[in-house]
Amino acid sequence: MRMAELIERSGTPLATVKYYLREGLLHPGVATAATRATYDDSHIARLRLIRVLAEVAGMRLAQIRGVLTAIEDDSVSLHDALGCAHRCLAAGPALDEAARVEMTELMHTLDWNVAPQSPALGELARALTAIRSFGGLVGGAEVLQTYAEAMHQVAEAEVGSVPTADRAAAVTHVVVGTLLAEPVLLALRRLAHQDISSRRFGGQIAGTEGARRSERPQT
Amino acid sequence: MRMAELIERSGTPLATVKYYLREGLLHPGVATAATRATYDDSHIARLRLIRVLAEVAGMRLAQIRGVLTAIEDDSVSLHDALGCAHRCLAAGPALDEAARVEMTELMHTLDWNVAPQSPALGELARALTAIRSFGGLVGGAEVLQTYAEAMHQVAEAEVGSVPTADRAAAVTHVVVGTLLAEPVLLALRRLAHQDISSRRFGGQIAGTEGARRSERPQT
Repeated sequence: MRMAELIERSGTPLATVKYYLREGLLHPGVATAATRATYDDSHIARLRLIRVLAEVAGMRLAQIRGVLTAIEDDSVSLHDALGCAHRCLAAGPALDEAARVEMTELMHTLDWNVAPQSPALGELARALTAIRSFGGLVGGAEVLQTYAEAMHQVAEAEVGSVPTADRAAAVTHVVVGTLLAEPVLLALRRLAHQDISSRRFGGQIAGTEGARRSERPQT
Repeated sequence: MRMAELIERSGTPLATVKYYLREGLLHPGVATAATRATYDDSHIARLRLIRVLAEVAGMRLAQIRGVLTAIEDDSVSLHDALGCAHRCLAAGPALDEAARVEMTELMHTLDWNVAPQSPALGELARALTAIRSFGGLVGGAEVLQTYAEAMHQVAEAEVGSVPTADRAAAVTHVVVGTLLAEPVLLALRRLAHQDISSRRFGGQIAGTEGARRSERPQT
Protein backbone atom coordinates (compact mmCIF):
# COMPACT_ATOMS: atom_id res chain seq x y z
CA MET A 1 0.00 0.00 0.00
CA ARG A 2 1.01 3.60 -0.50
CA MET A 3 1.76 6.04 2.33
CA ALA A 4 -1.70 7.62 1.93
CA GLU A 5 -3.38 4.30 2.64
CA LEU A 6 -1.02 3.51 5.54
CA ILE A 7 -1.97 6.84 7.13
CA GLU A 8 -5.65 6.24 6.63
CA ARG A 9 -5.72 2.63 7.79
CA SER A 10 -3.48 3.16 10.82
CA GLY A 11 -5.04 6.48 11.80
CA THR A 12 -1.55 7.90 12.33
CA PRO A 13 -0.83 11.39 10.95
CA LEU A 14 1.77 11.72 8.16
CA ALA A 15 4.15 13.79 10.29
CA THR A 16 4.11 11.12 13.00
CA VAL A 17 4.76 8.29 10.52
CA LYS A 18 7.69 10.22 9.06
CA TYR A 19 9.05 10.85 12.53
CA TYR A 20 8.88 7.15 13.43
CA LEU A 21 10.61 6.25 10.14
CA ARG A 22 13.38 8.78 10.82
CA GLU A 23 13.82 7.51 14.40
CA GLY A 24 13.91 3.90 13.23
CA LEU A 25 10.85 2.92 15.30
CA LEU A 26 9.07 2.02 12.06
CA HIS A 27 10.90 -0.08 9.46
CA PRO A 28 11.18 1.44 5.96
CA GLY A 29 8.84 0.39 3.17
CA VAL A 30 10.03 -1.15 -0.08
CA ALA A 31 11.22 1.65 -2.37
CA THR A 32 9.45 1.69 -5.74
CA ALA A 33 10.85 5.00 -6.94
CA ALA A 34 13.16 7.71 -5.62
CA THR A 35 10.45 9.22 -3.42
CA ARG A 36 7.97 6.39 -3.27
CA ALA A 37 7.68 3.23 -1.17
CA THR A 38 5.07 0.60 -0.50
CA TYR A 39 4.05 -0.58 2.95
CA ASP A 40 2.31 -3.70 4.17
CA ASP A 41 0.42 -5.07 7.15
CA SER A 42 3.62 -5.25 9.21
CA HIS A 43 3.70 -1.45 9.14
CA ILE A 44 0.09 -1.23 10.29
CA ALA A 45 0.85 -3.67 13.11
CA ARG A 46 3.94 -1.74 14.18
CA LEU A 47 2.06 1.59 14.24
CA ARG A 48 -0.66 -0.04 16.29
CA LEU A 49 1.89 -1.37 18.78
CA ILE A 50 3.56 2.05 19.12
CA ARG A 51 0.14 3.64 19.67
CA VAL A 52 -0.67 1.09 22.37
CA LEU A 53 2.64 1.64 24.13
CA ALA A 54 2.31 5.42 23.94
CA GLU A 55 -1.40 5.93 24.55
CA VAL A 56 -2.43 2.96 26.65
CA ALA A 57 0.76 2.36 28.60
CA GLY A 58 1.83 6.03 28.59
CA MET A 59 5.41 5.09 27.71
CA ARG A 60 7.97 7.63 26.65
CA LEU A 61 9.78 7.18 23.34
CA ALA A 62 12.91 5.78 25.00
CA GLN A 63 10.83 3.10 26.73
CA ILE A 64 9.02 2.28 23.49
CA ARG A 65 12.39 1.88 21.80
CA GLY A 66 13.45 -0.54 24.56
CA VAL A 67 10.36 -2.68 24.11
CA LEU A 68 10.73 -2.71 20.30
CA THR A 69 14.40 -3.71 20.64
CA ALA A 70 13.49 -6.59 22.94
CA ILE A 71 10.88 -7.77 20.43
CA GLU A 72 13.31 -7.68 17.53
CA ASP A 73 16.22 -9.33 19.33
CA ASP A 74 15.64 -13.06 18.85
CA SER A 75 18.24 -13.86 21.50
CA VAL A 76 15.83 -12.41 24.07
CA SER A 77 13.23 -14.99 25.13
CA LEU A 78 9.57 -14.13 24.71
CA HIS A 79 9.25 -14.20 28.50
CA ASP A 80 11.96 -11.56 28.84
CA ALA A 81 10.49 -9.45 26.02
CA LEU A 82 7.13 -9.52 27.79
CA GLY A 83 8.89 -8.78 31.08
CA CYS A 84 10.52 -5.71 29.54
CA ALA A 85 7.09 -4.37 28.55
CA HIS A 86 5.66 -5.32 31.94
CA ARG A 87 8.36 -3.53 33.91
CA CYS A 88 7.68 -0.32 31.98
CA LEU A 89 4.04 -0.51 33.10
CA ALA A 90 4.89 -0.37 36.78
CA ALA A 91 6.89 2.03 38.84
CA GLY A 92 7.36 2.81 42.48
CA PRO A 93 9.94 3.05 45.22
CA ALA A 94 12.05 0.00 46.05
CA LEU A 95 10.82 -2.34 48.78
CA ASP A 96 12.30 -2.11 52.23
CA GLU A 97 13.94 -5.26 53.56
CA ALA A 98 11.02 -6.42 55.75
CA ALA A 99 8.50 -6.06 52.92
CA ARG A 100 10.87 -7.77 50.49
CA VAL A 101 11.21 -10.79 52.80
CA GLU A 102 7.45 -10.94 53.36
CA MET A 103 6.62 -10.77 49.66
CA THR A 104 9.30 -13.36 48.83
CA GLU A 105 7.78 -15.70 51.41
CA LEU A 106 4.29 -15.11 50.01
CA MET A 107 5.47 -15.99 46.48
CA HIS A 108 7.18 -19.07 47.93
CA THR A 109 3.97 -20.14 49.69
CA LEU A 110 2.04 -19.72 46.44
CA ASP A 111 4.85 -21.50 44.53
CA TRP A 112 4.96 -18.63 42.05
CA ASN A 113 8.04 -18.11 39.94
CA VAL A 114 8.56 -14.34 40.19
CA ALA A 115 11.70 -12.21 39.91
CA PRO A 116 12.54 -10.73 43.36
CA GLN A 117 12.94 -7.25 41.88
CA SER A 118 9.58 -7.28 40.08
CA PRO A 119 7.77 -3.94 40.49
CA ALA A 120 4.46 -5.78 41.03
CA LEU A 121 5.88 -7.13 44.32
CA GLY A 122 6.26 -3.53 45.45
CA GLU A 123 2.70 -2.73 44.39
CA LEU A 124 1.43 -5.73 46.32
CA ALA A 125 3.40 -4.82 49.45
CA ARG A 126 2.17 -1.22 49.37
CA ALA A 127 -1.45 -2.29 48.80
CA LEU A 128 -1.31 -4.73 51.74
CA THR A 129 0.24 -2.04 53.96
CA ALA A 130 -2.60 0.37 53.08
CA ILE A 131 -5.19 -2.27 53.99
CA ARG A 132 -3.43 -2.97 57.29
CA SER A 133 -3.64 0.70 58.22
CA PHE A 134 -7.44 0.29 58.04
CA GLY A 135 -7.62 -2.85 60.12
CA GLY A 136 -6.31 -5.46 57.71
CA LEU A 137 -7.87 -7.66 55.09
CA VAL A 138 -11.11 -9.05 56.52
CA GLY A 139 -10.97 -12.78 55.98
CA GLY A 140 -7.19 -12.54 56.25
CA ALA A 141 -4.86 -15.10 54.73
CA GLU A 142 -7.76 -17.20 53.48
CA VAL A 143 -9.18 -14.38 51.36
CA LEU A 144 -5.68 -13.55 50.11
CA GLN A 145 -5.32 -17.18 49.01
CA THR A 146 -8.65 -16.91 47.13
CA TYR A 147 -7.43 -13.73 45.47
CA ALA A 148 -4.22 -15.44 44.37
CA GLU A 149 -6.03 -18.48 42.98
CA ALA A 150 -8.58 -16.37 41.10
CA MET A 151 -5.88 -14.15 39.60
CA HIS A 152 -3.86 -17.20 38.59
CA GLN A 153 -6.90 -18.53 36.68
CA VAL A 154 -7.32 -15.14 35.03
CA ALA A 155 -3.64 -15.03 34.08
CA GLU A 156 -3.75 -18.62 32.74
CA ALA A 157 -6.58 -17.69 30.37
CA GLU A 158 -4.80 -14.50 29.35
CA VAL A 159 -1.35 -15.97 28.77
CA GLY A 160 -2.99 -18.90 26.98
CA SER A 161 -4.41 -16.49 24.41
CA VAL A 162 -1.08 -14.69 23.77
CA PRO A 163 -0.17 -15.07 20.09
CA THR A 164 3.30 -16.60 20.63
CA ALA A 165 4.23 -16.85 16.94
CA ASP A 166 4.34 -13.08 16.55
CA ARG A 167 6.42 -11.34 19.21
CA ALA A 168 5.14 -7.85 18.39
CA ALA A 169 1.53 -9.07 18.58
CA ALA A 170 2.36 -10.79 21.87
CA VAL A 171 3.65 -7.59 23.43
CA THR A 172 0.71 -5.57 22.07
CA HIS A 173 -1.60 -8.15 23.58
CA VAL A 174 0.11 -8.11 26.96
CA VAL A 175 0.14 -4.32 27.25
CA VAL A 176 -3.46 -3.86 26.09
CA GLY A 177 -4.60 -6.87 28.08
CA THR A 178 -2.79 -5.92 31.26
CA LEU A 179 -3.91 -2.32 31.38
CA LEU A 180 -7.26 -2.21 29.62
CA ALA A 181 -8.59 -5.39 31.19
CA GLU A 182 -8.03 -4.03 34.70
CA PRO A 183 -11.22 -1.92 34.78
CA VAL A 184 -13.13 -4.87 33.26
CA LEU A 185 -12.05 -7.10 36.14
CA LEU A 186 -12.78 -4.48 38.78
CA ALA A 187 -16.23 -3.70 37.34
CA LEU A 188 -17.06 -7.42 37.21
CA ARG A 189 -15.97 -7.76 40.85
CA ARG A 190 -18.35 -4.98 41.91
CA LEU A 191 -21.19 -6.52 39.90
CA ALA A 192 -20.46 -9.93 41.45
CA HIS A 193 -20.63 -8.26 44.90
CA GLN A 194 -24.09 -7.01 44.03
CA ASP A 195 -25.24 -10.39 42.79
CA ILE A 196 -24.00 -12.19 45.92
CA SER A 197 -25.15 -9.47 48.30
CA SER A 198 -28.66 -9.51 46.81
CA ARG A 199 -28.84 -13.29 47.16
CA ARG A 200 -27.47 -13.37 50.70
CA PHE A 201 -28.85 -10.26 52.29
CA GLY A 202 -32.03 -9.98 50.25
CA GLY A 203 -33.90 -6.76 49.93
CA GLN A 204 -35.44 -5.52 46.77
CA ILE A 205 -33.28 -4.42 43.92
CA ALA A 206 -34.57 -1.06 42.79
CA GLY A 207 -35.45 -1.07 39.13
CA THR A 208 -36.09 -4.78 38.64
CA GLU A 209 -39.75 -4.40 37.93
CA GLY A 210 -42.01 -7.20 39.05
CA ALA A 211 -39.34 -9.43 40.55
CA ARG A 212 -38.93 -7.66 43.89
CA ARG A 213 -37.81 -10.04 46.60
CA SER A 214 -38.72 -9.05 50.14
CA GLU A 215 -37.50 -12.14 51.98
CA ARG A 216 -34.07 -11.83 53.55
CA PRO A 217 -32.34 -15.20 53.57
CA GLN A 218 -29.67 -15.56 56.22
CA THR A 219 -26.57 -17.55 55.38
CA MET B 1 -13.88 6.53 78.15
CA ARG B 2 -13.38 10.27 78.34
CA MET B 3 -13.10 12.55 75.30
CA ALA B 4 -9.29 12.66 75.67
CA GLU B 5 -9.06 8.90 75.28
CA LEU B 6 -11.54 8.87 72.39
CA ILE B 7 -9.36 11.38 70.57
CA GLU B 8 -6.21 9.42 71.23
CA ARG B 9 -7.59 6.00 70.38
CA SER B 10 -9.43 7.11 67.25
CA GLY B 11 -6.69 9.44 66.06
CA THR B 12 -9.34 12.07 65.29
CA PRO B 13 -8.64 15.68 66.35
CA LEU B 14 -10.89 17.25 69.03
CA ALA B 15 -12.25 19.91 66.67
CA THR B 16 -13.28 17.20 64.19
CA VAL B 17 -14.97 15.08 66.87
CA LYS B 18 -16.90 18.14 68.07
CA TYR B 19 -17.90 18.96 64.52
CA TYR B 20 -19.22 15.42 63.93
CA LEU B 21 -21.15 15.56 67.23
CA ARG B 22 -22.69 18.91 66.24
CA GLU B 23 -23.60 17.61 62.77
CA GLY B 24 -25.12 14.44 64.21
CA LEU B 25 -22.69 12.15 62.34
CA LEU B 26 -21.40 10.93 65.71
CA HIS B 27 -23.91 9.93 68.39
CA PRO B 28 -23.56 11.75 71.74
CA GLY B 29 -21.84 10.10 74.70
CA VAL B 30 -23.56 9.43 78.02
CA ALA B 31 -23.55 12.67 80.04
CA THR B 32 -21.88 12.28 83.45
CA ALA B 33 -21.87 15.99 84.34
CA ALA B 34 -22.93 19.25 82.73
CA THR B 35 -19.84 19.38 80.51
CA ARG B 36 -18.69 15.79 80.66
CA ALA B 37 -19.67 12.61 78.84
CA THR B 38 -18.29 9.11 78.45
CA TYR B 39 -17.82 7.35 75.15
CA ASP B 40 -17.45 3.70 74.23
CA ASP B 41 -16.24 1.44 71.43
CA SER B 42 -19.25 2.34 69.30
CA HIS B 43 -17.84 5.87 69.05
CA ILE B 44 -14.42 4.56 68.02
CA ALA B 45 -16.08 2.37 65.37
CA ARG B 46 -18.15 5.26 64.05
CA LEU B 47 -15.13 7.56 63.80
CA ARG B 48 -13.25 4.81 61.96
CA LEU B 49 -16.14 4.39 59.53
CA ILE B 50 -16.33 8.13 58.85
CA ARG B 51 -12.57 8.18 58.26
CA VAL B 52 -12.83 5.29 55.80
CA LEU B 53 -15.68 6.94 53.91
CA ALA B 54 -13.87 10.29 53.79
CA GLU B 55 -10.27 9.22 53.24
CA VAL B 56 -10.51 5.91 51.41
CA ALA B 57 -13.71 6.46 49.44
CA GLY B 58 -13.23 10.23 49.10
CA MET B 59 -16.88 10.87 49.98
CA ARG B 60 -18.23 14.32 50.72
CA LEU B 61 -20.04 14.92 54.00
CA ALA B 62 -23.48 14.73 52.37
CA GLN B 63 -22.64 11.30 50.95
CA ILE B 64 -21.28 10.13 54.31
CA ARG B 65 -24.53 11.25 55.91
CA GLY B 66 -26.48 9.21 53.35
CA VAL B 67 -24.48 6.06 54.09
CA LEU B 68 -24.81 6.54 57.88
CA THR B 69 -28.57 7.06 57.52
CA ALA B 70 -28.91 3.85 55.50
CA ILE B 71 -26.96 1.97 58.18
CA GLU B 72 -29.13 3.27 61.00
CA ASP B 73 -32.47 2.75 59.28
CA ASP B 74 -33.42 -0.83 60.10
CA SER B 75 -36.15 -0.77 57.46
CA VAL B 76 -33.36 -0.63 54.88
CA SER B 77 -31.97 -4.10 54.13
CA LEU B 78 -28.25 -4.72 54.57
CA HIS B 79 -28.06 -5.27 50.83
CA ASP B 80 -29.50 -1.81 50.17
CA ALA B 81 -27.27 -0.20 52.81
CA LEU B 82 -24.24 -1.76 51.12
CA GLY B 83 -25.61 -0.69 47.75
CA CYS B 84 -25.89 2.90 48.98
CA ALA B 85 -22.19 2.86 49.92
CA HIS B 86 -21.30 1.10 46.66
CA ARG B 87 -23.10 3.64 44.49
CA CYS B 88 -21.17 6.47 46.13
CA LEU B 89 -17.90 4.74 45.10
CA ALA B 90 -18.69 4.88 41.42
CA ALA B 91 -19.60 7.67 39.10
CA GLY B 92 -19.79 8.22 35.41
CA PRO B 93 -22.12 9.22 32.61
CA ALA B 94 -25.28 7.18 32.02
CA LEU B 95 -25.14 4.31 29.55
CA ASP B 96 -26.47 4.79 26.06
CA GLU B 97 -29.27 2.45 25.03
CA ALA B 98 -27.11 0.03 22.99
CA ALA B 99 -24.59 -0.39 25.82
CA ARG B 100 -27.39 -0.79 28.37
CA VAL B 101 -28.97 -3.60 26.34
CA GLU B 102 -25.59 -5.30 25.85
CA MET B 103 -24.70 -5.15 29.54
CA THR B 104 -28.16 -6.34 30.57
CA GLU B 105 -27.76 -9.32 28.24
CA LEU B 106 -24.30 -10.06 29.64
CA MET B 107 -25.65 -10.06 33.21
CA HIS B 108 -28.50 -12.30 32.03
CA THR B 109 -26.02 -14.74 30.43
CA LEU B 110 -24.02 -14.83 33.66
CA ASP B 111 -27.26 -15.14 35.68
CA TRP B 112 -26.14 -12.25 37.87
CA ASN B 113 -28.72 -10.35 39.86
CA VAL B 114 -27.69 -6.74 39.26
CA ALA B 115 -29.71 -3.53 39.28
CA PRO B 116 -29.95 -2.16 35.70
CA GLN B 117 -28.89 1.32 36.84
CA SER B 118 -25.79 0.11 38.70
CA PRO B 119 -22.80 2.40 37.99
CA ALA B 120 -20.53 -0.67 37.69
CA LEU B 121 -22.43 -1.64 34.53
CA GLY B 122 -21.37 1.69 33.04
CA GLU B 123 -17.76 1.08 34.10
CA LEU B 124 -17.83 -2.34 32.48
CA ALA B 125 -19.35 -1.01 29.24
CA ARG B 126 -16.77 1.78 29.00
CA ALA B 127 -13.87 -0.61 29.73
CA LEU B 128 -15.04 -3.04 27.04
CA THR B 129 -15.42 -0.18 24.56
CA ALA B 130 -11.85 0.96 25.25
CA ILE B 131 -10.55 -2.58 24.64
CA ARG B 132 -12.51 -2.81 21.38
CA SER B 133 -10.87 0.36 20.12
CA PHE B 134 -7.56 -1.54 20.41
CA GLY B 135 -8.71 -4.66 18.63
CA GLY B 136 -10.90 -6.30 21.26
CA LEU B 137 -10.29 -8.69 24.11
CA VAL B 138 -7.91 -11.38 22.87
CA GLY B 139 -9.51 -14.67 23.80
CA GLY B 140 -12.87 -12.95 23.41
CA ALA B 141 -16.01 -14.20 25.11
CA GLU B 142 -14.17 -17.17 26.63
CA VAL B 143 -11.69 -14.96 28.49
CA LEU B 144 -14.54 -12.68 29.59
CA GLN B 145 -16.29 -15.74 31.01
CA THR B 146 -13.11 -16.67 32.93
CA TYR B 147 -12.92 -13.10 34.27
CA ALA B 148 -16.52 -13.28 35.44
CA GLU B 149 -16.06 -16.65 37.15
CA ALA B 150 -12.84 -15.57 38.87
CA MET B 151 -14.37 -12.32 40.11
CA HIS B 152 -17.43 -14.19 41.36
CA GLN B 153 -15.16 -16.44 43.44
CA VAL B 154 -13.37 -13.38 44.78
CA ALA B 155 -16.67 -11.70 45.64
CA GLU B 156 -17.99 -14.90 47.31
CA ALA B 157 -14.98 -14.96 49.65
CA GLU B 158 -15.31 -11.25 50.33
CA VAL B 159 -19.05 -11.15 50.95
CA GLY B 160 -18.69 -14.31 53.06
CA SER B 161 -16.39 -12.42 55.43
CA VAL B 162 -18.71 -9.40 55.80
CA PRO B 163 -19.65 -9.04 59.49
CA THR B 164 -23.43 -9.12 59.02
CA ALA B 165 -24.35 -8.63 62.69
CA ASP B 166 -22.94 -5.10 62.72
CA ARG B 167 -24.21 -2.96 59.87
CA ALA B 168 -21.65 -0.19 60.38
CA ALA B 169 -18.82 -2.73 60.39
CA ALA B 170 -20.30 -4.30 57.26
CA VAL B 171 -20.22 -0.99 55.38
CA THR B 172 -16.69 -0.21 56.62
CA HIS B 173 -15.62 -3.62 55.40
CA VAL B 174 -17.23 -3.22 52.00
CA VAL B 175 -15.75 0.22 51.36
CA VAL B 176 -12.25 -0.69 52.55
CA GLY B 177 -12.43 -4.08 50.88
CA THR B 178 -13.77 -2.80 47.58
CA LEU B 179 -11.29 0.02 47.14
CA LEU B 180 -8.14 -1.06 48.95
CA ALA B 181 -8.24 -4.65 47.72
CA GLU B 182 -8.25 -3.52 44.08
CA PRO B 183 -4.49 -2.90 43.86
CA VAL B 184 -3.90 -6.21 45.69
CA LEU B 185 -5.84 -8.09 43.01
CA LEU B 186 -4.16 -6.23 40.16
CA ALA B 187 -0.67 -6.78 41.58
CA LEU B 188 -1.40 -10.49 42.08
CA ARG B 189 -2.61 -10.70 38.47
CA ARG B 190 0.67 -9.23 37.19
CA LEU B 191 2.68 -11.58 39.39
CA ALA B 192 0.62 -14.54 38.15
CA HIS B 193 1.38 -13.42 34.57
CA GLN B 194 5.08 -13.58 35.38
CA ASP B 195 4.80 -17.01 36.94
CA ILE B 196 2.87 -18.44 33.98
CA SER B 197 4.97 -16.64 31.38
CA SER B 198 8.20 -17.92 32.91
CA ARG B 199 6.86 -21.48 32.94
CA ARG B 200 5.50 -21.33 29.39
CA PHE B 201 7.96 -19.17 27.55
CA GLY B 202 11.05 -20.00 29.59
CA GLY B 203 14.03 -17.75 29.79
CA GLN B 204 16.00 -17.05 32.90
CA ILE B 205 14.59 -14.89 35.62
CA ALA B 206 17.14 -12.24 36.43
CA GLY B 207 17.99 -12.17 40.12
CA THR B 208 17.17 -15.75 41.07
CA GLU B 209 20.69 -16.66 42.02
CA GLY B 210 21.81 -20.18 41.18
CA ALA B 211 18.49 -21.32 39.85
CA ARG B 212 18.75 -19.87 36.36
CA ARG B 213 16.83 -21.93 33.87
CA SER B 214 18.06 -21.86 30.33
CA GLU B 215 15.69 -24.43 28.88
CA ARG B 216 12.57 -23.04 27.31
CA PRO B 217 9.72 -25.47 27.69
CA GLN B 218 7.06 -25.20 25.01
CA THR B 219 3.48 -25.82 25.99
